[in-house]
This record gives sequence, structure tokens and C-alpha cells, in this order.
Amino acid sequence: MASDFRRKEQLPELTDRIVASYHDLDLIHHLAHCPLPSSKEVFGIVRDLKEVLFPGYRGRQNLHWANVGYYVGDLVDSLHDRMTEQLCRALRHAHDQSTRTDCEKRGTVETTTDFERIGQERAIAFLETLPQLRETLMADARAAYDGDPAAASTDEIVFCYPGFEAITIQRLAHELYRLEIPIVPRMLTEWAHRQTGIDIHPGAQIGRSFFIDHGTGVVIGETCEIADNVKIYQGVTLGAKSFPKGPDGELVRGEKRHPTVEEGVIIYSSASILGGDVVIGSGSVIGAGVTLTRSVPANTVVTIEKPSLRFREAS
Amino acid sequence: MASDFRRKEQLPELTDRIVASYHDLDLIHHLAHCPLPSSKEVFGIVRDLKEVLFPGYRGRQNLHWANVGYYVGDLVDSLHDRMTEQLCRALRHAHDQSTRTDCEKRGTVETTTDFERIGQERAIAFLETLPQLRETLMADARAAYDGDPAAASTDEIVFCYPGFEAITIQRLAHELYRLEIPIVPRMLTEWAHRQTGIDIHPGAQIGRSFFIDHGTGVVIGETCEIADNVKIYQGVTLGAKSFPKGPDGELVRGEKRHPTVEEGVIIYSSASILGGDVVIGSGSVIGAGVTLTRSVPANTVVTIEKPSLRFREAS
Amino acid sequence: MASDFRRKEQLPELTDRIVASYHDLDLIHHLAHCPLPSSKEVFGIVRDLKEVLFPGYRGRQNLHWANVGYYVGDLVDSLHDRMTEQLCRALRHAHDQSTRTDCEKRGTVETTTDFERIGQERAIAFLETLPQLRETLMADARAAYDGDPAAASTDEIVFCYPGFEAITIQRLAHELYRLEIPIVPRMLTEWAHRQTGIDIHPGAQIGRSFFIDHGTGVVIGETCEIADNVKIYQGVTLGAKSFPKGPDGELVRGEKRHPTVEEGVIIYSSASILGGDVVIGSGSVIGAGVTLTRSVPANTVVTIEKPSLRFREAS
Repeated sequence: MASDFRRKEQLPELTDRIVASYHDLDLIHHLAHCPLPSSKEVFGIVRDLKEVLFPGYRGRQNLHWANVGYYVGDLVDSLHDRMTEQLCRALRHAHDQSTRTDCEKRGTVETTTDFERIGQERAIAFLETLPQLRETLMADARAAYDGDPAAASTDEIVFCYPGFEAITIQRLAHELYRLEIPIVPRMLTEWAHRQTGIDIHPGAQIGRSFFIDHGTGVVIGETCEIADNVKIYQGVTLGAKSFPKGPDGELVRGEKRHPTVEEGVIIYSSASILGGDVVIGSGSVIGAGVTLTRSVPANTVVTIEKPSLRFREAS
Repeated sequence: MASDFRRKEQLPELTDRIVASYHDLDLIHHLAHCPLPSSKEVFGIVRDLKEVLFPGYRGRQNLHWANVGYYVGDLVDSLHDRMTEQLCRALRHAHDQSTRTDCEKRGTVETTTDFERIGQERAIAFLETLPQLRETLMADARAAYDGDPAAASTDEIVFCYPGFEAITIQRLAHELYRLEIPIVPRMLTEWAHRQTGIDIHPGAQIGRSFFIDHGTGVVIGETCEIADNVKIYQGVTLGAKSFPKGPDGELVRGEKRHPTVEEGVIIYSSASILGGDVVIGSGSVIGAGVTLTRSVPANTVVTIEKPSLRFREAS
Repeated sequence: MASDFRRKEQLPELTDRIVASYHDLDLIHHLAHCPLPSSKEVFGIVRDLKEVLFPGYRGRQNLHWANVGYYVGDLVDSLHDRMTEQLCRALRHAHDQSTRTDCEKRGTVETTTDFERIGQERAIAFLETLPQLRETLMADARAAYDGDPAAASTDEIVFCYPGFEAITIQRLAHELYRLEIPIVPRMLTEWAHRQTGIDIHPGAQIGRSFFIDHGTGVVIGETCEIADNVKIYQGVTLGAKSFPKGPDGELVRGEKRHPTVEEGVIIYSSASILGGDVVIGSGSVIGAGVTLTRSVPANTVVTIEKPSLRFREAS
């Protein structure tokens, strides 16, 4: 009545077949001397960025005016070093891919690009955006408080609102996206997606005082443009209609595929707005469950027609 | 080919600007001598409460009748101390906010309120609800087993059903909500929201034998009232229609804004029921994708009209 | 101004009542000498399986052709031992349940079944599927790249796409399901559900080159059959219409309750397809928000009728 350890003798042969599969099936391994950004490091960076943005809520307790400068100064210094390293990894990896240099051979291949210096420059450029980001995020927190009768305080919003978490991470990722950092911005927004169920692409351009309530299931595509004071509920999709293909049969990447949402629009739960040429005019209200593939002028209320329901008695 | 550490010389000046922003942008920091509840502590408490409610599943293995009393007795003792501390923090913080005492100055300001004693009283009152909660949760587990043909055993439900996880956490949070504990109940339900994609406000009143299947995207608002034997599927919203504002232009907080769902109702995936005066009569069935903003009498089946679809051949 | 430790004197009596409730309310505890599979162990196994499938992305850095064999060989050896133990636990638990042997008394009760040997056999049979799984998963990664204009590289897909994570875990769980391992497959898919908001039952049969974009809110039921090259968006339900009950009033478990989706079908966001006899013909496109409870022939485009919306000016 026990497992038979002689049966383990077949495992080395299985290992050989698995390793052989790395040769044939090479799109889904990363056997190389140039490491990818580390998920663990990147998520540690996000955690510390939130400490800098919102001190006193989560990590270090008992911060006050007399000690916060030391704490934040130390975090900023450490973030500089760690971001330089991770951005450098991301830049080198993308370069290796685009030049089709076999990533595996790196270390022997000459390159004239100083990835470490570029990584450092962009890390500093990114950290320089933090004071401005705090201003934007305070407007978001206030929009959440003003927009949700269930919110007891802005502390509650910073502490546990998933919509605020998602927009915080997206605004950080968007700065990295504007600095043309590869892969890391998407790692950030997919991390937020896992935590919140809210999937906002790092490329989306989002105005001030943005509020997503509840949020699970929200999708906001790469080329969305959203003006100030927009409010969105759970399950809303701001997506693409269809993807044009180029003459080579490959998808065209980089075109505007997602809608434009003007100032002050409210979009209720599970509405879908699809297409790059769709504009929702300022002040409009899109009702729950509406699917729209064309523009609406300013100040329009769009709802589902009532008679689309059927009522009968239960048998 | 390296980062230039002289460039780090600009970081102290950046730190100064970040710290300066804490003065101007004061809604999103918590620089104060009175700590907020600790997320880490609160989630540790939730983990141990689940050990008490469902012993033998997750944490300590090999529990049996001869040792479970020691284990649970020790947990209850420790939960008392840790909950007293966290509830005390939550109560003091809310008090400081509501009296507009600058939280920062605490320690010098006199207060006549004994938050530690109140925290302890409510921690004990909360722990006293656990035997009754086990009874309610066993009925929920049975409802899940009876309602899902894919469930192989109630163990599977306790072990890994997200709907059972969400209702467990909400029932714990609801007891704290009834004891008028600030912020902590919402921390609990937002933690469950992150795990499960199910967002149930701590204030929602939910009857016995409640089952949410799949669950991602479900939203149940603060002032919902749900009777016994209700079954809900993924993507269902029990939400608000619109938020009345008071004479000061601020949202009115605390009114009934979310629907009432009577005994035995089934609500299929992605249906939305919106409004505080909406009552779904007992025994009714609300079909997938239906959006309702008015009441339906008992034993009504509501579905989407068939002809709202268009069929054509693919080009 | 402190908590009163004399009040703790009531805690032992409370503990007694909680322990007493384990006798009466016995569906939601596992007080027994035969341990259930350990969540922590099972999730560690999943993490290491992903290292074997996709080396170099997440865990060990700097893997290359000269060292990957040692690393993977060691992982496979360790996975054998740990999976044998966990599968053995799952098999013994299910056996105890089905024979209604009181699990509590195990160790004294004789059984002729050698669970350790069966656990080992199935662990090895499972590990033997890994080379084939790598082939299938590479096709999935390629389908994601080909289907999403926002994807910058297949590395990005392996690294952070939730749809790829969900199908990876489901394909692992499905192999365990085919080997008739109880409870563990569902632990895996519910873990993926928590991470991604995508809920695919281990029993679902899914063809090659499958891609779920965004994914939050997707539900794919136990008896779904999905052919090759199918693409699904967030919020899609492939679910059941209603559950037949047997003459004993209990649900009939194991019947085909979920739809069949043929080759090359695209299903846009929040569409629901419900029922075990529903077949979506090859090449069909199901539009956003459509609810279908009947079959459609090959090459059909199904969309929501336009006139179901009402437009008015905001007051």
C-alpha cells in the first residue's frame, strides 16, 4: 500500500521529451541570458509607488509630518534604482525582439544602445510625474466620493475602492506607456485587472475626475479617449467593432479602434460602446445594457426600449 | 554603458515636491498619530474566522474531536484581542473625522470616549454571533449543492465556490455593520470582491439559503433586501436607479436605493434590477439579460422578447 | 480607558458553543483523520507546472539551454512526489464520502484500495501529457497574438494575458478531470477564476487555438464542447437553460446542459448562449449582448436589432 519508486525511473525520459519540446515549441519559453522584467520586482515597485502617492494608508503606519520626508525620500531613492533595472530589462528585451537578434546569444552580440542609461532617464522622468499624478488622483477620489452615496469617506475610497485602485494603476501605467516602455505598462494594468476585474489598457487617455463604481467586468480599450468628469459602472465595455487587416493578412496595430467619450458622460452597467469612430457627446447618459455602435450628439439619453420584455405567469 | 549616479542628485528635490504636495493635496494621505485599521491584520482576522466557521478545510490539518476545542479556543482568544485593536482604530478614526478634530493632533486632544472599551464590547458581541452564523452558512452550502448540478459535494462548495466565499464574508461584514463599526465591514466585502468578482455591500440584508452561481460581476447594493431561498447568477446587478441630491447639492446618503427581492426568486445571468421602490414578487424568475426598473408581482416570469435579434448570413 | 480583560472570561463558554455547533452543523466542517488536499500545496504545484510549461518567464531567471534540463528534471521529480500525495488525498476523501464511511474513523477502518499507488499512477499519467499540452498552449498563444491588435508580442501574452492564464489552468485541470481525480480539478479552475474572472469548468472540452480576450465574467459550463479556432470576449456565458430533476426531486447530474460551439465561431462581449441542445454552427458570429437559447446554422451573424433603443434629449 504505497507508491512504487521504481515507477519514477521513467521521469528522466519524460524530462528529455519536455526539454526537446522547448526546441520545437519556442514561442512560449524564454531561455535566454537577458532576463525579462521580474513580476515580483514590478509588483513591489507598484506597492511602493502607492506608499509615495497615498502615505499612511497601507504599508508604514504612524507616518506624520516630522518623519514622512525621510520615509518618502528613502522610497524614491530605492524606486529609482529598482525601476532603472526593470525598465532596462524591458527595453533590452523589446530591442532584441525587434531586431530579431537571437535573445539567447546576448552577451556576445555587440549593441551600441546603452539600455541602462535609457532605463535610468525614463525612470527619473516617470518619478518626476508623481506630484502631478497626486493632484489628478485626488480629483478622482473626490469624484468617487461625490458620485457614490455608499461612500462614507475619502479614506474608504483610497483604502478599498476597486475603481480607485484601477485608475491609480492605469495612470501610472499610462505614464510609462507615454515614455515608450515596453511590456511593463501592461504588466501593471493586468495586475490591476486581476485585483479589480477592471481592464483598462495603459494606452487609454483618461481625463480628470474619473470614477468607476463597482467596476467588475469593465473593459476600456487602448485607443479610447475619455474627457473629464466621466462616470462608468460595472460591466461597461468601451471596445472595438472589428479589426482591419493589412495586405499581408495580419491585423493592423495602432489605429484608433475604440470610442471617444466627452465631458460629463455617465455610462450605466453593462452598456457596450464599440468602434473607433464613435463619439458620445458631452453630458449624455447611456442606460444599463445598451449596445451602441454609432455616435450620439451631446446631451442625449439612450435607453433600452421597454417593450422588449415579455411577462408571463410562472407555471 | 551604465546608469549615471550623478543623475540621482535631483531626487531629493523631487522628494521635497512630493512632500509639499501632501500639504496641498490632503484628501489622499493619512499622516496622523492615530493609525487606521491595518489591512494585513484585518485579512488575518478573516482567515482565522473562516478557520473557526469551517474547521479542517484550509489552515490547520488533522483536526478531530479530541483537539478541535483547543485549536478553536485559542483562535477565539486571539481573535478577541486582535479584533478589539482593529475595531478600536476604526472607531477612533471615524470619531476624529466626524468631529473634524485634526487627526494629526491626536494624543494631545482630550476625548471622553473610551474607544478601547467600545472596541472590546463590539468584538465580543461580534464573536457571539458565530454559532448562529454557522447555522446560516450551512443552509447556504446546502442551497449551493441543491442548486448546482456541477457540485460534487458540499466539501467542494466550502473549499472553492466563489459564491459561498462571498456570502460568508458578507455575512461576517454585515454583523460588523449592524454593530456600527466603520470602514472595516467595507474592507471585508471589498476583499471578497477582489477574490470573487462579487460585490455585495455589507449593508445588504440577505435571507437564508442564498446561492450565487459563478458570480463574477454580481453587484448587490447597500439597501437591498433579499428574502430566503433566492438564487442569483453571474453578472446580476441589484442596483440604484439614480441618486437624489439634497438642498446642498450633495448626495442624500442612507435612503433605500436598491430593490427588494422576495422569497424563492431566481435571477439569471446579467439581469439588472434597479431602484429602491422595485419589488420582485416571490417565486418570480428574471431571465438572462433583462433590465427591470419596476416591480413585478409574485410568480412572474420575465424574459427578453425573441424578435429583438437579427439573423443574416456571414459575407 | 482600556479594554477589560475580565470580559474575556466569557470566551471559553462561547468556544464550547462553537464546538457544540460542529456536532449539529456537520456539513461545513472537516474534522477527520484523513486530510483533504492542501490548497497551499496544490497552488504550489500549479506554479511549478507553469515553470515547466513556460520556462524563463516567471520563477527562475537566466534559464538557458545548458541549465534548463537540470531545472526541469528537478521540478518534474518533485512534482511527481507532491502530486502523488495530493491526488491520493483527493481519491481517499471521495471514496470515504461515496461509501459513507465516516471519514472521522479512518485509520481503523480496513480498505482494500491502495490510494497511494493509484495517486502515483495518475500523477505520472498526468505529467506524461505535458509535452502535448505545450503544443496546444503554443497554438493558444499564437491565436491570442493573431486575434488582438493590442498584443505587442507572444511574450506579453504568456506573461500577463488573463485569457491565456485561464485556458492554461483549464487545460491542466481537464487532464486531471479525464483521469477522474476528484475535487483537485475544480480547485485549479476556481483558482484561475479568482485570478482572471474567467470561470471555465474542468469538464469543458475545448479545441485548439482558443482565445478569450479581456475575459472577466466569462462562464463556460461543464458539458460545453468547443471546436478549434473559437474566439470569445468578456462577459460571455456558455451556460445551462434549466436543470432537470430526477424522480427523487434531486438535480440530475452529468447530462449535457451546455452548448456546442463549432469551428471558427466568434462570440462578442456579454453574449449568453444557453442550453445543452444548442449548436452554434461553424463560422458564425454572435454579436455583443445577444441572448440565444436555440441553435443557429453555420455562417450566421446574429446581432441585436437596432430599434430596441430609445433616444431622447437630457432634461
